[in-house]
Amino acid sequence: MRPHVVVNVAMSADGKISTRERRQVKISGPEDFLRVDRLKAASDAVMVGIGTVLADDPSLTVKSEDLKRKRKEQGKDEHPVRVIVDSTARIPLFASVLRNGKGVRVVAVSRKADPVKVAELKNLAKVIVAGEDDVDLRSVLDQLGPMGIRHLMVEGGGTLIASLFEKGLVDEFYTFVGNVIIGGVDAPTPADGGGFVKEADFLRLALLEVIPMGEGIVLHWNVKEGK
Amino acid sequence: MRPHVVVNVAMSADGKISTRERRQVKISGPEDFLRVDRLKAASDAVMVGIGTVLADDPSLTVKSEDLKRKRKEQGKDEHPVRVIVDSTARIPLFASVLRNGKGVRVVAVSRKADPVKVAELKNLAKVIVAGEDDVDLRSVLDQLGPMGIRHLMVEGGGTLIASLFEKGLVDEFYTFVGNVIIGGVDAPTPADGGGFVKEADFLRLALLEVIPMGEGIVLHWNVKEGK
Repeated sequence: MRPHVVVNVAMSADGKISTRERRQVKISGPEDFLRVDRLKAASDAVMVGIGTVLADDPSLTVKSEDLKRKRKEQGKDEHPVRVIVDSTARIPLFASVLRNGKGVRVVAVSRKADPVKVAELKNLAKVIVAGEDDVDLRSVLDQLGPMGIRHLMVEGGGTLIASLFEKGLVDEFYTFVGNVIIGGVDAPTPADGGGFVKEADFLRLALLEVIPMGEGIVLHWNVKEGK
Repeated sequence: MRPHVVVNVAMSADGKISTRERRQVKISGPEDFLRVDRLKAASDAVMVGIGTVLADDPSLTVKSEDLKRKRKEQGKDEHPVRVIVDSTARIPLFASVLRNGKGVRVVAVSRKADPVKVAELKNLAKVIVAGEDDVDLRSVLDQLGPMGIRHLMVEGGGTLIASLFEKGLVDEFYTFVGNVIIGGVDAPTPADGGGFVKEADFLRLALLEVIPMGEGIVLHWNVKEGK
């Protein structure tokens, strides 16, 4: 049973998730941080691509003490399972996501990953091997299901999100649209990758909610074509 | 007196205005076409970059017979002045924007443009020369003011819009956000160009309106930092 996949990103009013230098920037405000923290706390796992780990070194932990306490009261770990998609096992062994906060980590690698690095990672995380050169995302999701992960939140970056969209693996899509213009032909967007070329292939969404949030707005979409 | 500049674009839910092949695609629906037609009919001029002319060959005319009639009743041309920003005068002499519908055309070129081509263009359009290698947009706007253009609508593409944003020349920004995912690291976005790198340089907006429109939504922003 594949998890229900919810993608969440913050983008500028012109559709950028960062600058062309890929530095982490503030697009949303405290109201949206709390919304994202709640979404994370309500998820069984949080997934990011290795590009995001290398660029931002996030912990992917739940921040609110209240939400952490509630998770513990429900018999869960403080933090959802943290899943890193990392075809060639490039993740630094001292990455915050592997070190900060209690809870299970999963690193998904392809068969191309260096076995020595994979052996080292096994001290810190469960390792899923899926795919020859690139991680086979469908297979990863299929392996997360039996680990008790029914609700998966994806936090980026644009390459991972694009792959999930292209494979029809996304169920819901949240974008916080912030009150800034970033610009840049090389700045990352919510869905990078190859992209769709034919109009008939575009994924179709349905707008579920429009939520005013600080100085921006949250658009909550349902993906019509699914798995 | 520089015109009031309103940028209008339709983008996918993931912030793309077209596919990586830059083919014209349908992102919005009939409700939004009418809104854009109204915005156009209420403008003194419509501006696009040469990239959009070469990719889409738009006419930039008002489509609604009713709106055209109203413009004529007000003593105006059926169509607003059509302004093409085209540094090196690449516009084909048979481009629809130069041929379809009555009304004034302006082609803004730089001093680098071929004088022979510029002389040919003068049979079809007013030519504004501004800037050495690239068109100096501030100077173009300064020259449009005395032509009676107080309200200017900009329809794209991403490169022109980014230049206008970077120079602080945009007053309002409308995005129709459509219910599709296009994806693609090379797909054009509402603001391409170089982009801002430092967070302090990001243009700040204020959300004026959120308008449900067909299967998507229109976000109407005011640019806080202006000219």
